[in-house]
Amino acid sequence: MKTIAFIGLGNMGTPMVKNLLTAGCTVQVFDINAQAAQALAVDGAVVAANLDEVVQGADTVITMLPAGEHVRAVYLGDHHGGVGLLNLVAADTFLIDSSTIDPDSARLVAAEADKKGLTFVDAPVSGGVAGAQAGTLTFIVGGSDQGFQQAQQVLKHVGKNIFHAGKAGDGQMAKICNNLMLGILMAGTCEALNLGIDNGLDPKVLSDIMLQSSGRNWALELYNPCPQVMPTAPASNQYQPGFMGKLMLKDLGLGADAALKSDSAIPMGSLARNLYAFHNARGHEALDFSSLFEFYKSK
Amino acid sequence: MKTIAFIGLGNMGTPMVKNLLTAGCTVQVFDINAQAAQALAVDGAVVAANLDEVVQGADTVITMLPAGEHVRAVYLGDHHGGVGLLNLVAADTFLIDSSTIDPDSARLVAAEADKKGLTFVDAPVSGGVAGAQAGTLTFIVGGSDQGFQQAQQVLKHVGKNIFHAGKAGDGQMAKICNNLMLGILMAGTCEALNLGIDNGLDPKVLSDIMLQSSGRNWALELYNPCPQVMPTAPASNQYQPGFMGKLMLKDLGLGADAALKSDSAIPMGSLARNLYAFHNARGHEALDFSSLFEFYKSK
Amino acid sequence: MKTIAFIGLGNMGTPMVKNLLTAGCTVQVFDINAQAAQALAVDGAVVAANLDEVVQGADTVITMLPAGEHVRAVYLGDHHGGVGLLNLVAADTFLIDSSTIDPDSARLVAAEADKKGLTFVDAPVSGGVAGAQAGTLTFIVGGSDQGFQQAQQVLKHVGKNIFHAGKAGDGQMAKICNNLMLGILMAGTCEALNLGIDNGLDPKVLSDIMLQSSGRNWALELYNPCPQVMPTAPASNQYQPGFMGKLMLKDLGLGADAALKSDSAIPMGSLARNLYAFHNARGHEALDFSSLFEFYKSK
Amino acid sequence: MKTIAFIGLGNMGTPMVKNLLTAGCTVQVFDINAQAAQALAVDGAVVAANLDEVVQGADTVITMLPAGEHVRAVYLGDHHGGVGLLNLVAADTFLIDSSTIDPDSARLVAAEADKKGLTFVDAPVSGGVAGAQAGTLTFIVGGSDQGFQQAQQVLKHVGKNIFHAGKAGDGQMAKICNNLMLGILMAGTCEALNLGIDNGLDPKVLSDIMLQSSGRNWALELYNPCPQVMPTAPASNQYQPGFMGKLMLKDLGLGADAALKSDSAIPMGSLARNLYAFHNARGHEALDFSSLFEFYKSK
Repeated sequence: MKTIAFIGLGNMGTPMVKNLLTAGCTVQVFDINAQAAQALAVDGAVVAANLDEVVQGADTVITMLPAGEHVRAVYLGDHHGGVGLLNLVAADTFLIDSSTIDPDSARLVAAEADKKGLTFVDAPVSGGVAGAQAGTLTFIVGGSDQGFQQAQQVLKHVGKNIFHAGKAGDGQMAKICNNLMLGILMAGTCEALNLGIDNGLDPKVLSDIMLQSSGRNWALELYNPCPQVMPTAPASNQYQPGFMGKLMLKDLGLGADAALKSDSAIPMGSLARNLYAFHNARGHEALDFSSLFEFYKSK
Repeated sequence: MKTIAFIGLGNMGTPMVKNLLTAGCTVQVFDINAQAAQALAVDGAVVAANLDEVVQGADTVITMLPAGEHVRAVYLGDHHGGVGLLNLVAADTFLIDSSTIDPDSARLVAAEADKKGLTFVDAPVSGGVAGAQAGTLTFIVGGSDQGFQQAQQVLKHVGKNIFHAGKAGDGQMAKICNNLMLGILMAGTCEALNLGIDNGLDPKVLSDIMLQSSGRNWALELYNPCPQVMPTAPASNQYQPGFMGKLMLKDLGLGADAALKSDSAIPMGSLARNLYAFHNARGHEALDFSSLFEFYKSK
Repeated sequence: MKTIAFIGLGNMGTPMVKNLLTAGCTVQVFDINAQAAQALAVDGAVVAANLDEVVQGADTVITMLPAGEHVRAVYLGDHHGGVGLLNLVAADTFLIDSSTIDPDSARLVAAEADKKGLTFVDAPVSGGVAGAQAGTLTFIVGGSDQGFQQAQQVLKHVGKNIFHAGKAGDGQMAKICNNLMLGILMAGTCEALNLGIDNGLDPKVLSDIMLQSSGRNWALELYNPCPQVMPTAPASNQYQPGFMGKLMLKDLGLGADAALKSDSAIPMGSLARNLYAFHNARGHEALDFSSLFEFYKSK
Repeated sequence: MKTIAFIGLGNMGTPMVKNLLTAGCTVQVFDINAQAAQALAVDGAVVAANLDEVVQGADTVITMLPAGEHVRAVYLGDHHGGVGLLNLVAADTFLIDSSTIDPDSARLVAAEADKKGLTFVDAPVSGGVAGAQAGTLTFIVGGSDQGFQQAQQVLKHVGKNIFHAGKAGDGQMAKICNNLMLGILMAGTCEALNLGIDNGLDPKVLSDIMLQSSGRNWALELYNPCPQVMPTAPASNQYQPGFMGKLMLKDLGLGADAALKSDSAIPMGSLARNLYAFHNARGHEALDFSSLFEFYKSK
């Protein structure tokens, strides 16, 4: 079995480590928050004190970090005097970054890894904390065919669907496109339901009709944003996440950033981002992203 | 079997009449375009010369007209000196309007019908010309429970799904909400695919990933707007409709009109409408509505 | 001097009547709110009990009503059994409608007036209650050259700038375009100032720079929406109107309605309308329209 | 008189150098395009071969570069092995960057300059090529009071209005806010004029009315986007710039980027950016930015 160095032990990383341990892997863990690492000792993780220590003897590295600047810093060492992971790992170590970041950062790290003969893939994840705990995450992988096959051998222990989006950075880009679509779906679903309510329709009846018609979409199927329409949805549980509004704002921001760089027009996604910026700024950023319905519901 | 007066014999009305005839109904037909009516004689329809004649002996009326002004004119006679259908039909005639119009017009006609003891339902349709030919249309009915049950007995000959949205006018309103959602789905799908392409992704791979992720939606499932991704979609057949861009612009306009009347905010739907206004004005209004992809694709 | 029948005595109509009386005109007044008419008796107005009475002996009619449906009803009588002003006034009576309404209604009344040999102009007004009191209103007139010249002879007593926009209905259309522009200017000004504040700029300094640069616009010059930047603006007086948010929503709605009828794209104006719909629905519709700044200011 | 090192000799930099020479300054010039530097020899500029040479003996540096990455590279040397201007200039050299870039880059360079005891101001410019030639540019300066005063002594030779926006980076931020406003004004002006034309108004008459009403704004006053309304505007000269559409897209992109970093909502500016992205992608990026009118005008 594999020996994995896992770096970044937040809400997502921690349950992923537990599933890797359950699958029989040896997992060495590190986080700048030492308590987060220590808490995994009881599950059998080997706690490391720093980047150097965590990769000793590891054949695989998985990182799960907040943003592109952290990923660049950890791999390239640009804020650590040049001693990043690429200089610390053994030859043939396989590198997986599961953070959700800008494609340019992913491509930069992949290119630098390649110069040193290392294989790196970007493998951003969706499915949320619940998916991480259940081991049913979706991974969208960017990298070579060989990198994708290697990634599958590891990620199968923590995820259910593993897609190959294309070359380095394409995993990030495909996730960005998907979440841009999701932000549009959610805003549109809130809007259609609210327009119906304002004009006398029952949101449950309207939802049922749209589900069987051309308005059908993921948000309406699994995540109805109107309270009491779907008992299991966050909307029927005070919008407890689920997927927080601030994460949706971050992902739509990654979409906007990508569009700036490619001179693309994304009017619908830009508008959805701005609606989330308005909504979150009213103190709702830690609620589920379906709480945007409350921003629409006004009477 | 029923004797049906059918008024409005365009792309949708004509195949609906044929299916009613096939089901064994007696169908009397009228259109201001006399040729459209005459063409149905060979199928067994009884051709009438005017509104008065078409309803003689009929127990049911179905209308399929372009806009609210036509529906008001035909039922209330406001442009015909007061001699509308409500004054021409026999007592107990059951009235179905399958046009897609503004809810206020539907509610006005329903209220006037009620004053005369007649039952009227609004039953706008979706499924397009193909659905009309195959007899697989979807109807969204607004009216009383009893009106809905009566409508089912007739519409089952021409449709597959028949929904009860609520009281008079609610059929129109529910269809407006659904098509607002659809316009948003399509614009968002075009946008997400185009952003991916601009950033180096393969649209087929990206579509497959989104279909299995939270970006899933009706447009992506059945109507992929990018040429060659889905061989059966209009996009792979020079955007031959399908559902024309001008009809999407009309329906998004009905959504905007409803929002004006209820002081509702519909930023996503308004933006989708404006994108269609830009696109259609470039000479594409008779293409399928998924041709909006071409408006995005620019390099 | 002229004998004027004035119909519609709200916040705008009442001070206009006073200025006409001051100028020496005979003014006969009517409103469905009898108290509003009675209150003007002390100023010398002749109080009439109904439409029939108010036009007796008048050579000029001025109407100041809330919406197109009221204007159609008063002139054409469609809700009064056919006895509208066009059937009540003497031959050669000159008709001015200063309401802000949809161009189609204005064009309909103008056409009906023309059939009876009467001259009607649409002359919507801007300048607000303060302008009405000071007699400094702006009128934008639609109608023939001769109608425009006649209108100037009357309106000079209550306004300062009197423009000729074109044929019947064009006064309304030009006002709609101007107020669409104004809604965009105000939303844009709120947004630019808020972005600056969020990024550490002083809104007074930023306003001064933009006023001398290419960001200069009417809202920034006369109506700065950020409190304390401009002591005389509503923003520095708890957003007391001025021009209420609900009137801006109405005017942007007239713009949207015109765009629907001409299949025009108005993405910026549609978005501004939706921002006002969101803001007003939070209970701010009676505040000055510059209070949209509060909708942006979120931290 | 001053000895100035001027780096970046494009459409803007070249005429600025000429005006500094005319004012009696000694000007040493460098550009990676050696021809651009050589062309200024005839005017009296001292041509330098590299960064090191251009600053020898200079008391002031002015840079005029395309984007933040170039400014960071030139001052900090991050792409040149660490030998940037901050390591090359003499103590007490005064540094002015007149590029239009992101505020973060400006703040980074200012902070690094400060560590070395050097004074740096950001002083982005507006007024275009014509303003650069005439010496009537506007500068918006970010930096200390003392830095602002020093900047005035130099920039007075090339500009007319010199504003102090605030601390380091605030010059860039204020320009970004102004140009966000300008993009909104221009898009709104195109839209209001086009809506009027679509509804039968004369654009010249409508422009005159709005100029004297609450729709007044810089674009309408000086830069009417409808051909033949204003003979001196780019619109009446085949949209020859002026200010190119691609520069407006860049500046609106800087606004969007700033909003991403501060989690601000800028729906109107985002939409304007997307309209320019659509328009430019159709091959119009080198036309004047008022050519957006053609994107609206569709019939």
